[in-house]
Amino acid sequence: MKQVRVGLIGTGYMGKAHAIAFKTAGAIFPLSGELLCEMVAELDPQLAERKAKEFGFQRSTGNWQELVNDPKIDVVDICAPNHLHKEMALAAIAAGKHVYSEKPLALNAKDALEMTLAAEAAGVKTLVGFNYVKNPTVQLAKEIISNGEIGEVVHFRGTFNEDYLADANSEFTWRLKREFSGSGTLGDMGSHIINMAHYLVAPIAQVCADLQTVHKQRPIAGTTEQMGEVENDDQVHMMVRFANGAIGTLESSRIAWGRKNGLWFEVTGTKGSLIYDQERLSELQLYTQNEAKNRQGFRRILTGPDHPDYAHFCVSAGHGLGYNDMKAVEVRDLIEGILTEAPLWPDFRAAYQVNQVCDAAETSYQEARWVSLSHE
Amino acid sequence: MKQVRVGLIGTGYMGKAHAIAFKTAGAIFPLSGELLCEMVAELDPQLAERKAKEFGFQRSTGNWQELVNDPKIDVVDICAPNHLHKEMALAAIAAGKHVYSEKPLALNAKDALEMTLAAEAAGVKTLVGFNYVKNPTVQLAKEIISNGEIGEVVHFRGTFNEDYLADANSEFTWRLKREFSGSGTLGDMGSHIINMAHYLVAPIAQVCADLQTVHKQRPIAGTTEQMGEVENDDQVHMMVRFANGAIGTLESSRIAWGRKNGLWFEVTGTKGSLIYDQERLSELQLYTQNEAKNRQGFRRILTGPDHPDYAHFCVSAGHGLGYNDMKAVEVRDLIEGILTEAPLWPDFRAAYQVNQVCDAAETSYQEARWVSLSHE
Amino acid sequence: MKQVRVGLIGTGYMGKAHAIAFKTAGAIFPLSGELLCEMVAELDPQLAERKAKEFGFQRSTGNWQELVNDPKIDVVDICAPNHLHKEMALAAIAAGKHVYSEKPLALNAKDALEMTLAAEAAGVKTLVGFNYVKNPTVQLAKEIISNGEIGEVVHFRGTFNEDYLADANSEFTWRLKREFSGSGTLGDMGSHIINMAHYLVAPIAQVCADLQTVHKQRPIAGTTEQMGEVENDDQVHMMVRFANGAIGTLESSRIAWGRKNGLWFEVTGTKGSLIYDQERLSELQLYTQNEAKNRQGFRRILTGPDHPDYAHFCVSAGHGLGYNDMKAVEVRDLIEGILTEAPLWPDFRAAYQVNQVCDAAETSYQEARWVSLSHE
Amino acid sequence: MKQVRVGLIGTGYMGKAHAIAFKTAGAIFPLSGELLCEMVAELDPQLAERKAKEFGFQRSTGNWQELVNDPKIDVVDICAPNHLHKEMALAAIAAGKHVYSEKPLALNAKDALEMTLAAEAAGVKTLVGFNYVKNPTVQLAKEIISNGEIGEVVHFRGTFNEDYLADANSEFTWRLKREFSGSGTLGDMGSHIINMAHYLVAPIAQVCADLQTVHKQRPIAGTTEQMGEVENDDQVHMMVRFANGAIGTLESSRIAWGRKNGLWFEVTGTKGSLIYDQERLSELQLYTQNEAKNRQGFRRILTGPDHPDYAHFCVSAGHGLGYNDMKAVEVRDLIEGILTEAPLWPDFRAAYQVNQVCDAAETSYQEARWVSLSHE
Repeated sequence: MKQVRVGLIGTGYMGKAHAIAFKTAGAIFPLSGELLCEMVAELDPQLAERKAKEFGFQRSTGNWQELVNDPKIDVVDICAPNHLHKEMALAAIAAGKHVYSEKPLALNAKDALEMTLAAEAAGVKTLVGFNYVKNPTVQLAKEIISNGEIGEVVHFRGTFNEDYLADANSEFTWRLKREFSGSGTLGDMGSHIINMAHYLVAPIAQVCADLQTVHKQRPIAGTTEQMGEVENDDQVHMMVRFANGAIGTLESSRIAWGRKNGLWFEVTGTKGSLIYDQERLSELQLYTQNEAKNRQGFRRILTGPDHPDYAHFCVSAGHGLGYNDMKAVEVRDLIEGILTEAPLWPDFRAAYQVNQVCDAAETSYQEARWVSLSHE
Repeated sequence: MKQVRVGLIGTGYMGKAHAIAFKTAGAIFPLSGELLCEMVAELDPQLAERKAKEFGFQRSTGNWQELVNDPKIDVVDICAPNHLHKEMALAAIAAGKHVYSEKPLALNAKDALEMTLAAEAAGVKTLVGFNYVKNPTVQLAKEIISNGEIGEVVHFRGTFNEDYLADANSEFTWRLKREFSGSGTLGDMGSHIINMAHYLVAPIAQVCADLQTVHKQRPIAGTTEQMGEVENDDQVHMMVRFANGAIGTLESSRIAWGRKNGLWFEVTGTKGSLIYDQERLSELQLYTQNEAKNRQGFRRILTGPDHPDYAHFCVSAGHGLGYNDMKAVEVRDLIEGILTEAPLWPDFRAAYQVNQVCDAAETSYQEARWVSLSHE
Repeated sequence: MKQVRVGLIGTGYMGKAHAIAFKTAGAIFPLSGELLCEMVAELDPQLAERKAKEFGFQRSTGNWQELVNDPKIDVVDICAPNHLHKEMALAAIAAGKHVYSEKPLALNAKDALEMTLAAEAAGVKTLVGFNYVKNPTVQLAKEIISNGEIGEVVHFRGTFNEDYLADANSEFTWRLKREFSGSGTLGDMGSHIINMAHYLVAPIAQVCADLQTVHKQRPIAGTTEQMGEVENDDQVHMMVRFANGAIGTLESSRIAWGRKNGLWFEVTGTKGSLIYDQERLSELQLYTQNEAKNRQGFRRILTGPDHPDYAHFCVSAGHGLGYNDMKAVEVRDLIEGILTEAPLWPDFRAAYQVNQVCDAAETSYQEARWVSLSHE
Repeated sequence: MKQVRVGLIGTGYMGKAHAIAFKTAGAIFPLSGELLCEMVAELDPQLAERKAKEFGFQRSTGNWQELVNDPKIDVVDICAPNHLHKEMALAAIAAGKHVYSEKPLALNAKDALEMTLAAEAAGVKTLVGFNYVKNPTVQLAKEIISNGEIGEVVHFRGTFNEDYLADANSEFTWRLKREFSGSGTLGDMGSHIINMAHYLVAPIAQVCADLQTVHKQRPIAGTTEQMGEVENDDQVHMMVRFANGAIGTLESSRIAWGRKNGLWFEVTGTKGSLIYDQERLSELQLYTQNEAKNRQGFRRILTGPDHPDYAHFCVSAGHGLGYNDMKAVEVRDLIEGILTEAPLWPDFRAAYQVNQVCDAAETSYQEARWVSLSHE
């Protein structure tokens, strides 16, 4: 039986989510091979060891290069902070490893392109963790759109709002500095909604954006009265025009009180509409004009075994999937993509296109104009 | 007892809504005087007569100038198509009448300003039918914001979507022609959400907009195969910057399948948030950070007698108001504004500011740039 | 043109709701005759006079018998406390008047039957104010059921919960005493949900009930420390079996924190289901099995002009009706029922059947057994 | 490090859910020992072998007795059909194993008591899979109630409705026969809502129930025209009185169109209320009277890291848990209960009390009377 041996770099929030998914994917899905949790890397070797045990990995290291170059690693999973993605991915590619990276792929499109070209030249497989597109409910939305059930798409509204920095007194973090995080909510959560728009509608061809930093300073943890300068955006708006003629708006905020996982989209077509709210991730609302006029209404479809991938989790409809389940689908895609000819999406190139839109949004804001994109 | 004698021009959709409100306002609210339904004007004198009877008005005429100049009319209520507002309002003002007009006030800001200056010079009172701000639930939102309960407003998202032209085969109407309607969804529904933003946040200082006509031709009623050219927008987006530093997005569509009265707003402040959905017009969702962290959540407040104006309709909470009830509040405001010193808002000047934003949005779209507004 | 001259007894909560409806019905609906607000009766003649003016009635009296016997009154509208319904209705019937009474019709089935037989013998028309069945949304539910769109009804769940006495310190009122109010929440709100079940499903043939008074004493207003003894139920449950074989549960509470107008029903049939929530009174949720299996879901239908009666209020769908609008439909029914052959429902006999179920519920509780009903 | 070696009997729907949880529990929670997936039993040894591989178990057997008596098994997990629970559990207890059983524990209270006494006598630990009480959101409800945040509980409404047999043409299954399943929806889904009531309120002291089989025959799979006789209930109602004086209603249906996981409860106290809907399993609605009167409303709390157990799944609030995650909590409880002094609930005794209520409900229905329970 074929094997895929995983090396995980980074054991924070996302590292744990990946670790859970590595454990569950095989119990949930029939895989074309065995997924082996081989090695964990962390800066601190003791932490690495402890996490390896917790996460059920065989070995650990305090040196990510060691992991990348270990002959028993087939795929390198990068859950380290954003500014490290590039160096790690390039090293992994150079070592001939497949790469599974968290999003955003890079701090800017230039870096993302470099990484993409390197992976393509090396012929390794890549996947980027835009996990929300893996939700069976979102796959159902894609299916409905692809079938033409809502006609031609004419509008997309997408938001991704949370309130994790809504409190003006939230402490300063690395996410607020350009060199570590690049843009702010734009690259962090905005990248998800851009990728979602690409998935559901078409490439974004033009963008006009507004960005704003509301809380310009944040208290530095462990100090009294010392403030850090926030270098990136708290709120971002984009007006977009898609390659297929549809238009839309994208918004993201990290200071939107009350929003906990506020990825929300509405897709309007010439024959119907869809609404999705990530906070109710097992529901899709569908409106179609082909009902009797006096019986029309948004229909709340609860995801179930008749929808993509759901039956592997549960044979009963509406029993509900959770956040970690989307990662399990993503890991299934990763393993199948590596072991078979199954397509892997979003790969580095798709993630590069997301970075392109992010860069265009910043340019648009700085120059107060529409910016065109040419997706390759 | 003082009287206010009303002359109503136009007996279509809005004419009837006004007529219902004229009947109910006095039964619901204690008014400072008697509201008398005096005269109805319609192009067709027979229709005018029939509608006068239906609506409970004393007299009727086929000539609106006659109504405007009738000495027994105190206030002229303009429910005629948009392109006639200006001529009718100026005539009414010239005759020394107060004017109650449907929105949008004019086809463009220039006309709206002319009307505003005329009314102010004549010293007559004016009110424009942006009825949604009259809803007790929306007044509650205003009260919460004014009290600082959600802190400083940093973001406003407003949409007003409907699907009344979503069907590509919907017949051509006067609303689709520039000379009769001015802009499309922008002036029709967009004007409501602009006015709402002005009411809840601050004047809009800058706008950057995108407009699109999706269905460029519509079949002409009663013909075979003859198509009319649609001259105005089906969909509009605006990114806005408010005078107080907040930013926001405004959207409107008349082709958004499934949306029946989709005026929706979200107001984010530094200490909390509000969400309102016109399709559930007696509910306001409030999130505030000053709860215990593990008990926070959006609270669904059902409008009741402890909120503005509601107790006049019903002494029990949550029993629900309807579309026509908002017009009753508006008519109460009209009567009290005329008979007392109570302020009348939105008056012609406020409506002119809405027209300014609409014009700026069109300029922004045509010139692909941000446009600044100077509200006087 | 024919006229219907109304005499209104009682000017409290319901009296005002009726008065508003008398004013609006004619503006909203084309009526077969003219509705004239003739006379108001209140115990206090000065209050009667003031209310007559407020409500737009011609005359007033401090003596309800005078109203009942006035030759210019065609229909007596009884909005007085429950224990007075019988005497007033019998007097009105004796005077040959039509009678429009608030619910519950009587304190018990025996009285209700006496009133019913008197009205039938006199040949006067009757209508009882179970207003919630008049909502266009509820009429739509009835239409869907009658069409067989959800198959044969097999289950009905109905609740009517409010929190107006949830506070243990709420003051003692007449509603808490048997002699004035009869049963507690059972007759007050429970009667609405019983009538709704009769409207939507079938006569109730058997009932098994539980009643409970949670707050056994309430402070008497204006006193210190004096408590009144609560003589009727705060909470009631009923298991019911319908004449057509369906079964169901009915519940009502006046101490259910957070419920403001919590009339909720779910109707399950062999081919689909309906859900209705009075707090969102312009929405009906419909589930039918005859969709593709992977597209099924509860559909949120917003009431609109393609549904019963709605178009008279507004030509646009989803613009929302309110509490007072249901009374306008009820008054339209009253006027048409009096002037034409249009059926009047729920009449005294239908209301008597509701009283029968209430009585059976009390017997069931006292004797801890199922009680059968024989509807005549 | 201590170990817990699991033997799993049954690999259907629930077997897989358990298997997934065995894999994830350790990745999600810090456990006091190692959980080892030791052996799978199925009637068909080949199926057993295949499932063992799929589920990641070491060994397999076609003979459950072998599993029960294997010295390397610490806990026997029973996911076999209901009628086999007793024999298997008694054998496991006799072999000194801890027992983890799916619900309902037994076909009747007598059997459940026998199993309970055997386990208690043997001193083995037991846990029954009433998984819905393990949801962090439900634990939060429990915490709110225990804190007195909604005052004294006065009412509980619980339903558990699904539509998996709503189609009259659904095929006959073992669940429809008394000897294999005992009661119908009562024991299957009703047992969950009974257990939930016990968890959140108090023991049920009295019950009065109604049961109904709507579809009395079902087609037998693979035959033409042959019908099987349905021997148990499609719909059940219970009126209950709790030991603490609160009252309530419990309902369950397996023919409720549109309900996919319709476990719903409402808890009303003297100071507030809670609402929970299993189809939105990461939301709890809380209403408390201790807000300003004009700011009260049901608050939608999204479960997050400040609530019980959630932080182990995800550090961000509102990211949503799913059906399988509840089983992971249950398995964590199992392992901790076995390895430490942590309490295990619901154990066999708690499950026996659920069986008692089920039996009482059937007696109540048959004898058309209230039935009292004496919980030991």
